[in-house]
Amino acid sequence: MIFQVEMDVRIPHDLPAETANALKAAERERAQELQRAGIWRHLWRHAGRYANTSVFDVESPQALHDILSGLPLFPFMDVKVTALCRHPSSVRDDDR
Amino acid sequence: MIFQVEMDVRIPHDLPAETANALKAAERERAQELQRAGIWRHLWRHAGRYANTSVFDVESPQALHDILSGLPLFPFMDVKVTALCRHPSSVRDDDR
Amino acid sequence: MIFQVEMDVRIPHDLPAETANALKAAERERAQELQRAGIWRHLWRHAGRYANTSVFDVESPQALHDILSGLPLFPFMDVKVTALCRHPSSVRDDDR
Amino acid sequence: MIFQVEMDVRIPHDLPAETANALKAAERERAQELQRAGIWRHLWRHAGRYANTSVFDVESPQALHDILSGLPLFPFMDVKVTALCRHPSSVRDDDR
Amino acid sequence: MIFQVEMDVRIPHDLPAETANALKAAERERAQELQRAGIWRHLWRHAGRYANTSVFDVESPQALHDILSGLPLFPFMDVKVTALCRHPSSVRDDDR
Amino acid sequence: MIFQVEMDVRIPHDLPAETANALKAAERERAQELQRAGIWRHLWRHAGRYANTSVFDVESPQALHDILSGLPLFPFMDVKVTALCRHPSSVRDDDR
Amino acid sequence: MIFQVEMDVRIPHDLPAETANALKAAERERAQELQRAGIWRHLWRHAGRYANTSVFDVESPQALHDILSGLPLFPFMDVKVTALCRHPSSVRDDDR
Amino acid sequence: MIFQVEMDVRIPHDLPAETANALKAAERERAQELQRAGIWRHLWRHAGRYANTSVFDVESPQALHDILSGLPLFPFMDVKVTALCRHPSSVRDDDR
Amino acid sequence: MIFQVEMDVRIPHDLPAETANALKAAERERAQELQRAGIWRHLWRHAGRYANTSVFDVESPQALHDILSGLPLFPFMDVKVTALCRHPSSVRDDDR
Amino acid sequence: MIFQVEMDVRIPHDLPAETANALKAAERERAQELQRAGIWRHLWRHAGRYANTSVFDVESPQALHDILSGLPLFPFMDVKVTALCRHPSSVRDDDR
Repeated sequence: MIFQVEMDVRIPHDLPAETANALKAAERERAQELQRAGIWRHLWRHAGRYANTSVFDVESPQALHDILSGLPLFPFMDVKVTALCRHPSSVRDDDR
Repeated sequence: MIFQVEMDVRIPHDLPAETANALKAAERERAQELQRAGIWRHLWRHAGRYANTSVFDVESPQALHDILSGLPLFPFMDVKVTALCRHPSSVRDDDR
Repeated sequence: MIFQVEMDVRIPHDLPAETANALKAAERERAQELQRAGIWRHLWRHAGRYANTSVFDVESPQALHDILSGLPLFPFMDVKVTALCRHPSSVRDDDR
Repeated sequence: MIFQVEMDVRIPHDLPAETANALKAAERERAQELQRAGIWRHLWRHAGRYANTSVFDVESPQALHDILSGLPLFPFMDVKVTALCRHPSSVRDDDR
Repeated sequence: MIFQVEMDVRIPHDLPAETANALKAAERERAQELQRAGIWRHLWRHAGRYANTSVFDVESPQALHDILSGLPLFPFMDVKVTALCRHPSSVRDDDR
Repeated sequence: MIFQVEMDVRIPHDLPAETANALKAAERERAQELQRAGIWRHLWRHAGRYANTSVFDVESPQALHDILSGLPLFPFMDVKVTALCRHPSSVRDDDR
Repeated sequence: MIFQVEMDVRIPHDLPAETANALKAAERERAQELQRAGIWRHLWRHAGRYANTSVFDVESPQALHDILSGLPLFPFMDVKVTALCRHPSSVRDDDR
Repeated sequence: MIFQVEMDVRIPHDLPAETANALKAAERERAQELQRAGIWRHLWRHAGRYANTSVFDVESPQALHDILSGLPLFPFMDVKVTALCRHPSSVRDDDR
Repeated sequence: MIFQVEMDVRIPHDLPAETANALKAAERERAQELQRAGIWRHLWRHAGRYANTSVFDVESPQALHDILSGLPLFPFMDVKVTALCRHPSSVRDDDR
Repeated sequence: MIFQVEMDVRIPHDLPAETANALKAAERERAQELQRAGIWRHLWRHAGRYANTSVFDVESPQALHDILSGLPLFPFMDVKVTALCRHPSSVRDDDR
């Protein structure tokens, strides 16, 4: 099943650069791992903002939570989750 | 280039049913036409609401506007447009 | 899996009383049917408002959407859906 | 009587980890104690966010306040309280 | 126990005057009945708006709901309910 | 004349405990003084939040401002002031 | 004492023109009467909107309410009232 | 001097088509007249919405109001006005 | 021409008192200077909040910006600017 | 294609002045460079606020993102992006 997740990242300016960069690198690695696993299906950047729209394909809300709450940058995110489902006018079968 | 478009549809209760159904049928037909053309890339229903998240792949904002403002249900929609671009952590090449 | 659903009902004052009462009766019947089926797990009224908090136990967001969008009063509802999952501090096993 | 309580937890990034972990452990212990006492009836996590929806069964608003304001993480919470009551369409007797 | 209730009244301009006046008269009568019964403890008008702040002393949220949802003008109200309790700095004993 | 005042208190976590406690003690003392003087007519706690609804009986907005801005916790408050007046349906004479 | 009052006027498009014009004329007359009486001290139009900022000099919130609720266009207004008082840096004595 | 004006147009569905089309034609004519006069300096459509961002070069807020409130579609607009001025980093002299 | 300016002042609690007091003194001096010059026409305190409503009479938005951005407390203000103009029902000539 | 970008700048008071000034100087230089290149077409200051409205003429949302996210003050900005296109009533050809 699929969930739209919008993540607004706000890293406090007084977080040591070293810490911030390490978090970003770990975030990137984890995001790519999940994409290759077909879980993190889409990851788009909002033009002009440190925010993204993602679409996750997971077993359950619990699985979604475990993934998101485990992201390195999770403590610095405002997250909005929208449960999605197939639109009756969709012509695609793989767009669960 | 790609745009995230969220459409909240509110059809007034006093719109004659016949008119509403004709609009919905025309909307469905147009949406499927645009999907088959690869323009309306994704169309997901928000679970529990008469709303959707769509992703459009268009030449320009002008093209996007012509499509959206031409939709039969456009007069009854609250529309939110977010310009998207490739996320630096995305592993996909086709997710422009 | 479980979803919190908050429904704010606003029935237009110019909707014929007969129509409104028929919708309410059908809504009530459907709600009780779904509760007995264990799908509509909780249904609480917000004290002082024509609104409720419900908890649904469904197979997927799609199932949730089919149920909610099929409710007789759906056209007159503002609906807010929150995907829930087990809280790590919960002592209950049946509160999926 | 029952109250819906939504808790959004925001722990400042510059709170020493030790302090934060101690608070979380105490919070967990207190939450489980209240659940076993039948006061904290439901505790669900919002998928993807450090937030929960809870349902409390208490004697009065005063009792609710004493419980919530005594929670270890209370100083770091945005709390929204909604007084609930039995829905006329509810089929359950124990869902006070 | 006591609840703060803020009522914003919006009577549609196309509601026949006769109906509106009858509703207002019935509302007034019911409000005064409840005040004399000590249930509707305080009723203040927001200066400059068709809105009020009230304080109700009731047995439970259910009692509050039955009262508010039974008010003649209820269908035309936006209602906000806040559960109150004794403030630790209050010097009054009767201000439950 | 009377004013409804809602005070949301947010004490920064990095304010030394000693300072915070001294402020709270002074706030309590001042609040009780004003209540005994009949100025701070009502003081109710919002159940579950570090916030209150108060009703002040003062000579003028200026008097209200001098009182509120002089409260020890004023710098840590979000304050919302609503001018109240007698409701035409009120049966009380002393509820100015 | 003085109050800032912001009035947003929204006249429904299906209100007969004749009725609307009569209301506007009566509103104008009443506004000028109150200005000449020194009660409606300031009346400024928000550039580009059917809205105004006014400053009233009245005896009490009750007086303010009687004036505003008696305005012909009151039923079509969203009103925001802010109690004002003398600013400590003001050099004016007559700007109560 | 220049003002940014954002206009959100919402034409009620029950406004006769003939009336709506006449208003739109008159609006177009007036807009082009003002553009040629150098007053309506910029007029951009928000992609996907019946809304625009405009920049007006006028003598005063009063002039701006007279223009906007005289637009045929003004009664169906939500208008947001932002006073602009030269940015210290602007390299343009004519961007009043 | 005139502008309504609402200033919400939030001075961080960890700003050294000495700095804060110096800023406030400078702000007061500058405000009085501008009032005596007839530029800062009105300055009212919002009762109960560290906020004010002001009315400025300036040559242009640029002049307004230079004044406001030069205020000592500007960095700690949330500012809302509304362009005003003469109301057709105003009886005053000097209220530009 | 063109995008409206509104930037609200909030520089934390505890950011060393030296750092802040260096960022502002770099921001200014970069902004002027982009303006001279015809990319940053318009840059207006919101009168009274540390915010601007800009119009960018870029190849794609990706290009817009690279520019904005590369701005020295980007970490201290709240950014709102609106995709624009030619208004059917525009008389200008170069206002793409």
